[in-house]
Amino acid sequence: MALIVQKFGGSSVADASKMLQVARRVAKNRKEGNDVVVVVSAPGDTTDDLIAMAKEITDEPDDREMDVLLATGEQQASALLAIALKSLDCDAISFTGPQVGIVTDDVHTKARIVKVGDSKIRGALKLGKVVIVAGFQGVNKDQEITTLGRGGSDLTAVAIAAALHADVCEFYKDVDGVFTANPNIVKNARKLDAISYDEMLEMASAGAQVLNARSVEFAKNFGIKIHVRPTFNEKEGTIVMQETRAMEKVVISGVTYNKDEAKVTVRGVPDRPGVASILFSKLANAGLNVDMIIQNIGEKGHSDVSFTVNRGELKKTMKVVTDAAKTLKPAGVISDENIAKVSVVGVGMKSHSGVAARMFQALAEKGVNILMISTSEIKISVVINEKDVAKAVTAIHDKFKLGKKAANERG
Amino acid sequence: MALIVQKFGGSSVADASKMLQVARRVAKNRKEGNDVVVVVSAPGDTTDDLIAMAKEITDEPDDREMDVLLATGEQQASALLAIALKSLDCDAISFTGPQVGIVTDDVHTKARIVKVGDSKIRGALKLGKVVIVAGFQGVNKDQEITTLGRGGSDLTAVAIAAALHADVCEFYKDVDGVFTANPNIVKNARKLDAISYDEMLEMASAGAQVLNARSVEFAKNFGIKIHVRPTFNEKEGTIVMQETRAMEKVVISGVTYNKDEAKVTVRGVPDRPGVASILFSKLANAGLNVDMIIQNIGEKGHSDVSFTVNRGELKKTMKVVTDAAKTLKPAGVISDENIAKVSVVGVGMKSHSGVAARMFQALAEKGVNILMISTSEIKISVVINEKDVAKAVTAIHDKFKLGKKAANERG
Repeated sequence: MALIVQKFGGSSVADASKMLQVARRVAKNRKEGNDVVVVVSAPGDTTDDLIAMAKEITDEPDDREMDVLLATGEQQASALLAIALKSLDCDAISFTGPQVGIVTDDVHTKARIVKVGDSKIRGALKLGKVVIVAGFQGVNKDQEITTLGRGGSDLTAVAIAAALHADVCEFYKDVDGVFTANPNIVKNARKLDAISYDEMLEMASAGAQVLNARSVEFAKNFGIKIHVRPTFNEKEGTIVMQETRAMEKVVISGVTYNKDEAKVTVRGVPDRPGVASILFSKLANAGLNVDMIIQNIGEKGHSDVSFTVNRGELKKTMKVVTDAAKTLKPAGVISDENIAKVSVVGVGMKSHSGVAARMFQALAEKGVNILMISTSEIKISVVINEKDVAKAVTAIHDKFKLGKKAANERG
Repeated sequence: MALIVQKFGGSSVADASKMLQVARRVAKNRKEGNDVVVVVSAPGDTTDDLIAMAKEITDEPDDREMDVLLATGEQQASALLAIALKSLDCDAISFTGPQVGIVTDDVHTKARIVKVGDSKIRGALKLGKVVIVAGFQGVNKDQEITTLGRGGSDLTAVAIAAALHADVCEFYKDVDGVFTANPNIVKNARKLDAISYDEMLEMASAGAQVLNARSVEFAKNFGIKIHVRPTFNEKEGTIVMQETRAMEKVVISGVTYNKDEAKVTVRGVPDRPGVASILFSKLANAGLNVDMIIQNIGEKGHSDVSFTVNRGELKKTMKVVTDAAKTLKPAGVISDENIAKVSVVGVGMKSHSGVAARMFQALAEKGVNILMISTSEIKISVVINEKDVAKAVTAIHDKFKLGKKAANERG
């Protein structure tokens, strides 16, 4: 008998028949003798619909009230799932985030979890009930409703798993697990049986959408074992866990890409201390998140600075850069929206040399031009033209023989 | 400067433009220097949609979870109205029923209010905010979400008005106030300027849908002045208040009808003590609400018992009656769905004789057959064929000269 936290996303509970399918799955787990806590997202398009309603009233709806509004989607899902479970004779009870005591800070629309109460959940589990918790939401110290921002329900699940010392936190997805590359692009992409927190973190921040980086970080910090598995079949998925020796034997775990970025280059800025500081302070103050940054020293004591930002924030970014240009007086500012970032991730990289060279060779062989390069301990990212993404990902995947089970399978 | 509680129904907040119209109205009241607390219902069809979702999962959704589900509709409305008010530069804050501390008993889906907290509301009013409270919902002593059943948001408004000792509780409706009869049926129906709690109670229970009987009773018990007024124009509506001398001069305040009932007759039951008790105990135990009851002694020590029930519960009623018939052995059981109840209501009835005679005369003149008669201190109801309703209501309205302002206007 184990204590399992299960998280189901919005598409898994989008309508009555899917809701019942999820309920049957949960009920089966309960009948097998496990204690089960379920965290649900808002059904289907509920959150988008609510945002649209608010935006119809005003372009800039109040953050506190948006939290009150949006929290209802997950509350509905939790009640409906409890109704479905009880209709299957599986005793269940739903709780909102505030009821459970998910205490957060005061930052509405992207609050951070401070504390998770466990007594309410433990009490209900003791009575043999499946406990369903509305994801994405909490309450600050003044009992105001808060929400956790993007990926908030994933975070709720991991936080509850940590508070309860759960044996595993299962994420049910519409994919079979974490893959060596996007199976829609790379035909022979392979599902990974296991991956380390750090690799998963890098893959998430490099564009793999299967898990949210904040939740992986939380899970890593509390040592929560994550199991990413398919909602609508019973196959084993991918375990995300502490790095093991076996993992290190594998050089690369996966190839990811991200088409959501845009590149900005500030050309010919004076090459003296403080220049980068001025530029990136202004961007940070404007709440803009910069991903890759590269600086080259150019001719006559001038240098070029390139960086990438979220594509949706390019307009806002260009405004800030144009403003900074009044001080920096660069030779020019160029932006490019038609780029993509392709990354290889793997803990084995630490002990294997030549990974970067192998990656660049794969790209060169296919005639893919590299615009920017950035590396971390277990990740190498390149920025290329967006049109080359499929070609690049497939070439790298082939080069590292990720699709070939025999050579790279984990122990 | 007054403390006003304003209640807006679901149709008043059904979409963004209506929500903004309501917000402008509330903001105006606030700007005039009043302290304003607003209670909202769920927008438009939200509640019906949520019920449909639950029913798609199972025919008999769990009561506790239905409360968790349905409470979200009002929460959404309260957040959206706060967003609208803030977009008009009118500071506002929304609270859920649980946040305000609307404490109820444990009866899910039709809980009764036990206590209303006022500190949260008073605190926000002191800061100059308009306070918006999600109607229809509360929380029991174990912090479980409860809902108040039919007309629940009206009840929330009156309860809050009582807790705050508000000067008036305004109900905004899509009609101009309380009328002497349904204006859709009676052309010259007249809006009443004032009506007593007792009359309003009788009219509500006799089919007038403008106010819910539970809320009127609550208002009466706590002496809360109610103002029923139109949402989309600024005309004065109808004041519901303690009976005054002036009111008693008017014999009849209004004519109402109810087409939601069905009639059941149990013929030829033994005329001995306990017979009615057996029948109506069984109905009560089955949770069936009986309205009018009439018993006539017939031939040979046998009598006929007739009663009316909610038309939607006729099938369930007939099952109970058929079961009771095994003990009572009546000559027969007949039911009739095509009936309607028409009532005249007025405190003046107490001191004026001949009201019943005048009503029956009006019906006789139009050839309307009376199937049942029932009277209370300030109401006379008759059951007639459903097809005769319009004719009957108009005839009675004319007979008592309710449409003629000069003769019946209140002081």
